[in-house]
Amino acid sequence: MSEERTEISSLGEFGLINHLTKNIEHQNASTILGVGDDAAVIDHFGRQTVVTTDLLMEGVHFDLMYTPLKHLGYKSVVVNLSDLYAMNATPTQIVISVAISNRFSVEAMDEFYDGIYAACEEYGVDLIGGDTTSSQKGFVISITALGEVAPDQYVKRSTAQVNDLICVTGYLGGAYLGLLLLEREKKIFLETKGVQPDLENRDYIVGKLLKPEARKDVIEFFQREALVPTAMMDISDGLSSEVLHICKQSGVGAVLYEDKIPVHPESKEFAYKLELDPTACALSGGEDYELLFTISQNDYDKIKEVEGISVIGYIAEEKEGATILTRGGNRHALVAQGWNSFS
Amino acid sequence: MSEERTEISSLGEFGLINHLTKNIEHQNASTILGVGDDAAVIDHFGRQTVVTTDLLMEGVHFDLMYTPLKHLGYKSVVVNLSDLYAMNATPTQIVISVAISNRFSVEAMDEFYDGIYAACEEYGVDLIGGDTTSSQKGFVISITALGEVAPDQYVKRSTAQVNDLICVTGYLGGAYLGLLLLEREKKIFLETKGVQPDLENRDYIVGKLLKPEARKDVIEFFQREALVPTAMMDISDGLSSEVLHICKQSGVGAVLYEDKIPVHPESKEFAYKLELDPTACALSGGEDYELLFTISQNDYDKIKEVEGISVIGYIAEEKEGATILTRGGNRHALVAQGWNSFS
Repeated sequence: MSEERTEISSLGEFGLINHLTKNIEHQNASTILGVGDDAAVIDHFGRQTVVTTDLLMEGVHFDLMYTPLKHLGYKSVVVNLSDLYAMNATPTQIVISVAISNRFSVEAMDEFYDGIYAACEEYGVDLIGGDTTSSQKGFVISITALGEVAPDQYVKRSTAQVNDLICVTGYLGGAYLGLLLLEREKKIFLETKGVQPDLENRDYIVGKLLKPEARKDVIEFFQREALVPTAMMDISDGLSSEVLHICKQSGVGAVLYEDKIPVHPESKEFAYKLELDPTACALSGGEDYELLFTISQNDYDKIKEVEGISVIGYIAEEKEGATILTRGGNRHALVAQGWNSFS
Repeated sequence: MSEERTEISSLGEFGLINHLTKNIEHQNASTILGVGDDAAVIDHFGRQTVVTTDLLMEGVHFDLMYTPLKHLGYKSVVVNLSDLYAMNATPTQIVISVAISNRFSVEAMDEFYDGIYAACEEYGVDLIGGDTTSSQKGFVISITALGEVAPDQYVKRSTAQVNDLICVTGYLGGAYLGLLLLEREKKIFLETKGVQPDLENRDYIVGKLLKPEARKDVIEFFQREALVPTAMMDISDGLSSEVLHICKQSGVGAVLYEDKIPVHPESKEFAYKLELDPTACALSGGEDYELLFTISQNDYDKIKEVEGISVIGYIAEEKEGATILTRGGNRHALVAQGWNSFS
């Protein structure tokens, strides 16, 4: 954080909004009217709108002790865009509301919005509105993201078919291991004053937690290849939980192969160091924001050589349930141990 | 609140969402896909989408000591729809996120959602998605509302013209007086155990605060009369503040007449009882959710006989500033004393 500190109250709500939004330039032709009125206006050209929203609470979803505000802004946008990509849609606009207590300065909000704008730039979306208010305690972020899709090209969770291949993008479990690392270092720091966090050689897992990316590249690949997944969702609560969602909503079962689940070498190494099973981290750890999708076997040739897409199993009959075949040859039922903010 | 108490943790996040959304029936043909996937999908028929969002924080925007949860749900929707009507748009869909602490039960959430659904029904909008999460403290509500407008028929704040008439709907100041009443009764109740709140003959101001309505009827009237205001916004922060917004964004001045500002008889009576000036309550009190709009003088005949629409002044040159002519014949500059959550 910079050394200057301007109190939010010196600007007031409208002053703060003006300050934070004064450099907005729209990137989408469909954005007709943005920040500054009761609502924003979006045009359409025979396309369908896709809408998603997320509410992020300090102390529940993020810890400002080890989360830089700029990264938090960036990630807040990314987690919403990930939901749009998971519908096979192209993000176009976002609205963002924040509630802040008086412990935050204008400079702190600038850092947060730097991250918001960096994500808007990276993904080609326009910030078109929002709400800024005060909070008695803690930082609250609500983002709603809008995207477009050609008529009826959106992909649901409920349309996986028996014998489809189950695929994931990237590596799984990294964000969860990043969280364990940062929580451990936070604990050490709080207990032993003066000890600096040891994050050496942990760039991948720390980055995966603090600055995840949404899989725009994968959706663009689908469009280039004219490949439409039969079902898709993003992996925010852990692979097991998401596979079970697709199974339940599609009325099917699934078989996963442990040895096909992609785990990054740095994740494996850190998992072993903590005496954790890397596969368990991939199955139950959240926040990877990779895509889980199913495709017809006929489309296998289109993806088999693609770096960053792994076939990890297949869709089975509903009566077979959802199971995983371990390296040792055992078969276990998948259980949803994903993150639950109410447990 | 009912006597049963089911812990939210007994349902979990997905269980709670299923429970709260299981009876949704869509009312708009444009709603293609609603709750239950990564995002919702909306179709278009050569219309433009209008988007608005609001974040409501317990302890800042509402006090659960005197706000029934069902009313809170209803009002949360209404305040967003009011922003869409203020754009001359027809609301079609909402997404809603809530964060709750474990002091809320499933039954409490049911009451809150009863209010949400009652508003959806009343205004013909579909609830199509959202997010439900936990909060360390306090109840947080974020709603994003989407509406439709025929191409380029939306009405901005920045397009008022010199000599236009300034109009408002309904009565002003009532919600603020309702707030003063309920805060007074809360204080008495807390200081003197056993004393029940005295709200007799205060239905209008209490209702205006706890269960406001958005002016759907006025927008429908505009459509029937083919009347397009030159500028419009809703009155959420007090008349003065909103007139100043229109002046600033349109680059104009304004003259208001104190004796034309509509104040309900019950508001007047209670204001006098508190030794407050009813006009000051109308100018600076917030949360009325009436519409402030400007029309060309040529359209005066269309509104002059309409009950519930008052002409309160006219748009002047920018250099004349924004002023109010009092009953006593004095001229005062308008000052924004609207509600500011950061002050």
